[in-house]
Amino acid sequence: MSLNAEIISVGSELLLGQICNTNAQFLSKELAMLGVNVYHHTAVGDNPTRMKTIFEQASDRSNLIICTGGLGPTQDDVTKETLAQILNTELTTNEVALHNITTFFKRANRIMTENNRKQALVIEGSHVFANNHGMAPGMAYKHNDKLYILLPGPPKELQPMFLDEVKPYLQKQGIISHFILSRVLRFYGIGESQLETDLHDIIENQNNPSIATLASSGEVALRLTAKAETEQEANRILDQKEKIILERTGKYFYGYDATSLPLEVSKLLEQNNLQLACAESLTGGLFSQLLTQISGAGSIFNGGIISYTNEVKEQVLHIPREILTSEGAISSICAEKMAEHVREIMDADIGISFTGVAGPSKSEDKEVGTVFIGISIKDQETVIYPLNLIGSRDSIRKNTANYGFYYLLKHLKKGE
Amino acid sequence: MSLNAEIISVGSELLLGQICNTNAQFLSKELAMLGVNVYHHTAVGDNPTRMKTIFEQASDRSNLIICTGGLGPTQDDVTKETLAQILNTELTTNEVALHNITTFFKRANRIMTENNRKQALVIEGSHVFANNHGMAPGMAYKHNDKLYILLPGPPKELQPMFLDEVKPYLQKQGIISHFILSRVLRFYGIGESQLETDLHDIIENQNNPSIATLASSGEVALRLTAKAETEQEANRILDQKEKIILERTGKYFYGYDATSLPLEVSKLLEQNNLQLACAESLTGGLFSQLLTQISGAGSIFNGGIISYTNEVKEQVLHIPREILTSEGAISSICAEKMAEHVREIMDADIGISFTGVAGPSKSEDKEVGTVFIGISIKDQETVIYPLNLIGSRDSIRKNTANYGFYYLLKHLKKGE
Repeated sequence: MSLNAEIISVGSELLLGQICNTNAQFLSKELAMLGVNVYHHTAVGDNPTRMKTIFEQASDRSNLIICTGGLGPTQDDVTKETLAQILNTELTTNEVALHNITTFFKRANRIMTENNRKQALVIEGSHVFANNHGMAPGMAYKHNDKLYILLPGPPKELQPMFLDEVKPYLQKQGIISHFILSRVLRFYGIGESQLETDLHDIIENQNNPSIATLASSGEVALRLTAKAETEQEANRILDQKEKIILERTGKYFYGYDATSLPLEVSKLLEQNNLQLACAESLTGGLFSQLLTQISGAGSIFNGGIISYTNEVKEQVLHIPREILTSEGAISSICAEKMAEHVREIMDADIGISFTGVAGPSKSEDKEVGTVFIGISIKDQETVIYPLNLIGSRDSIRKNTANYGFYYLLKHLKKGE
Repeated sequence: MSLNAEIISVGSELLLGQICNTNAQFLSKELAMLGVNVYHHTAVGDNPTRMKTIFEQASDRSNLIICTGGLGPTQDDVTKETLAQILNTELTTNEVALHNITTFFKRANRIMTENNRKQALVIEGSHVFANNHGMAPGMAYKHNDKLYILLPGPPKELQPMFLDEVKPYLQKQGIISHFILSRVLRFYGIGESQLETDLHDIIENQNNPSIATLASSGEVALRLTAKAETEQEANRILDQKEKIILERTGKYFYGYDATSLPLEVSKLLEQNNLQLACAESLTGGLFSQLLTQISGAGSIFNGGIISYTNEVKEQVLHIPREILTSEGAISSICAEKMAEHVREIMDADIGISFTGVAGPSKSEDKEVGTVFIGISIKDQETVIYPLNLIGSRDSIRKNTANYGFYYLLKHLKKGE
């Protein structure tokens, strides 16, 4: 069956702009990965007349209709009632769902009001999807070669229900026959357009796996998605394409899937039993904050000094006054001393420093975006990375911190 | 004219789940504030046949139809062409828009390809909205008592165009007759449910102004929206309600509209010519990072010491070893010494310190969420604020930093 899918989202909170329709986005993305074409999104309120028209229009043009929301206990929630009426069928109590709901109330030590029984009603003859993160079950109902799927509105209920139950159901029904596997390759230190230029022919001639570029705050990632008969075959397709991509761009590659630069740095420090300290000027604590977001950072991070003024640079970080007056705080030599001194002061193995101009205006006559990052490792010569960044104050600070993680990673990998 | 509005969003990136339909949310929220009822959202691809059907269905049920996207230069962009065809009218070049587009290319020193002229085409007889943040103009076209409004897809073009041009246009057309004014009151140190309980009767009996509660990372805000014949009258309505609200909850109030705790703290430090220094343990740089996000922080923030390990607390912050071994790092006395010492080390007027357990596991046998914040002011007794926070590691860290700003604000205001 060739699938024309559409998504109907029910809820006045959408029409009032109180929430964004993230359910439609989530389902569309998942369906796209499964090779299912979505041609329409509709949002409508909990109004039976308007909802009925929308269901009828959807039935005329689509054969997979996924509807989210309006399965709750209140009088407002009329999605399944309205659909049952159109399909000329009845609602019936699903005992498993009813049991889940009564258990939920018992556990929460709350009295279950009568209207909650309504949540256990499902369309007669439908396949029921259990709700492991809430009360209202989902359901799938086939009618005249069309498949209707009703899912609860809250994203934290809908998303696991779709991934854990609806997806396997669609596969079992033979609606989706192939195996889909994605892999994200993460890069740093290369722009989106440069990466696309370097891989131009590969991206241009993509087929299986498909290749999508994802970019966010200075970082670029490629999502490869393979379609195959088996998981093994999908993995083989991904491995093959990854090899070709990394032959060209491997020096910017740093990790797979949900990892991040701070996480990769943490892991390597941990593995090598190394302690880090940092001296931050323009980043003002951002680098340390990103590192300490990771739980267990205490074993790899001693601490940092935020030297926002020259007085603190001189008195706390012991940067010689001559350097600050002759070369200035935004200089290669200042970054060098900051990295070395913070390493010594904090008794760490590695010191990293950040000095530069985040903007909005020049400082010490140096242009906005002028940045020096220093990395000092015990018994090694300190290395300085000068950067010229563009963008807002916020993006210059973020990019500076991320470059810090990237250069650290390069250092740590060299040492392996 | 009683308005039934609907929003049509054009773009295959919506149907592939690559972006979320934030335009529909933005427009719905704005229209709700103007008292306009939105009954449908639809998203459809750049496909003339399907788009035509959607326009026809919309024309049957709504009298204000706002369509976003598909006004660009490529062959894919067919929104205005399709609408013109349905309305039996023509497209014509708008000279002002064409001038903007050619100027744009000249400034960017790029060659304007022929297809960009297409962006200057508008529906004949339409009212044109200038695009001050991009190239494609928007337009409004009246036909049989229905008003069609076409807007560009990129949010950074659509949002200012709606606020600066479409809203006044709707008012001028008599479609929106009243004056709408919003004011946001920001609170800290009080939970959303407590605020709602304290203001229960006021929120329950709201009419004009309407009252909406907004909550985000430990902070609560109330948005009051008044409707009146004149701006002066709307302001009077807001003033009156604000007075009643602050009589009950004034001690948690800290600012209006788009302000933030770090911004209010910065302003007060600046006004009082005071310098701050901070010692961070569990927040790991987050407090400093939030403060230095604000440009010009150099004049009120000397710097900070991130003392993530006990060794750094002892050797850099000079916390006596006895304190660390007897009371522990997570203690009132440690917070006190951290605040006092960082103030002295950084030669600041005020020192603030953060120590505690962000989790996920206990530390020093103290529960996750145990936090001490210290504030030391020259020639004054140091004050300690103990907190017991709940939530994830991330939210405990964020709340701790925000409480730091809140307590600082209280101190600074007391001194006024």
